[in-house]
Amino acid sequence: MQRKLILYISTTLDGFIAKPNDDLSFLSIVEQEGEDYGYADFVASIDTVIMGRKTYDWVMTQVPVFPHADKTAFIITRTARPSIGNTHFYTGNLKELVQKLKAEPGKNIYCDGGAAIVNELLKDRLIDEFIISVIPILVGNGTKLFNNELPEQQLTLLSTKQFDKGLVQLHYKYGE
Amino acid sequence: MQRKLILYISTTLDGFIAKPNDDLSFLSIVEQEGEDYGYADFVASIDTVIMGRKTYDWVMTQVPVFPHADKTAFIITRTARPSIGNTHFYTGNLKELVQKLKAEPGKNIYCDGGAAIVNELLKDRLIDEFIISVIPILVGNGTKLFNNELPEQQLTLLSTKQFDKGLVQLHYKYGE
Repeated sequence: MQRKLILYISTTLDGFIAKPNDDLSFLSIVEQEGEDYGYADFVASIDTVIMGRKTYDWVMTQVPVFPHADKTAFIITRTARPSIGNTHFYTGNLKELVQKLKAEPGKNIYCDGGAAIVNELLKDRLIDEFIISVIPILVGNGTKLFNNELPEQQLTLLSTKQFDKGLVQLHYKYGE
Repeated sequence: MQRKLILYISTTLDGFIAKPNDDLSFLSIVEQEGEDYGYADFVASIDTVIMGRKTYDWVMTQVPVFPHADKTAFIITRTARPSIGNTHFYTGNLKELVQKLKAEPGKNIYCDGGAAIVNELLKDRLIDEFIISVIPILVGNGTKLFNNELPEQQLTLLSTKQFDKGLVQLHYKYGE
């Protein structure tokens, strides 16, 4: 079976993945001891990560060690940097990278944002599965998950999960 | 118990309630004989409807008789028209209308769109419950359900329902 590119991301009900200035404080609404919303299981199913450069740099301001250092990671950027272990800074064509990775053997591929990369992938209909966690809040401003002008794409619902803190996780695959 | 103002509406996964030119053709994805997604039960729980004038005029191009003619309806408009039975064209302040209606006895109040009215109500945090049906498609263009610049408002998830055709119905109430 071909490897799949999977988007696993949180959004507010009004479609924002962050408030202005990368403010993710609304995630505290759904924080619960011992509840990871399936993240560990999901991460165990992937071996490769695609992430935008801005998101990478932001993550690195938050943590001492890149959380995906044990995977193969491609940080999508216009400016070359030397690789750090298995973390590669990729300045080439994103579509070609994804097509190449999908053709290789391996576990699934995780798109870990940000919005620019997600929408670049959606523009080419390259995302195979969507695991979207809806946080029960309207925030009104920030970074949108889905840009306007995306090409139309029908999805198939695979599952819905509802959690105690009001998070709803929607799992779709691409196509009818 | 005070009457509640309830938004009952469909949206694509990327947050559009219609494609350009009021195109609702994506609703056909979830059409299924004998499945009304709880609409009849919901309508039985309300006795009053609030709707924008543009939405009203659009509805009247689609059907011979106004579907809410048996309820008390307020069509929000800048231009006065004579009432048609219990259908009133309301040119006053929307917030005052909603506060007045909520203070009166009766069943719940249905906000039946469009986006301009929904967002005007959200601006003043007047919507008490949200029943949002998510259609499994990205469309990229059209009329957004939630505008930018809304004031932040936390919601409480009441229930989630998943249907055969991939529609997910999210039911929230206002507040923590």
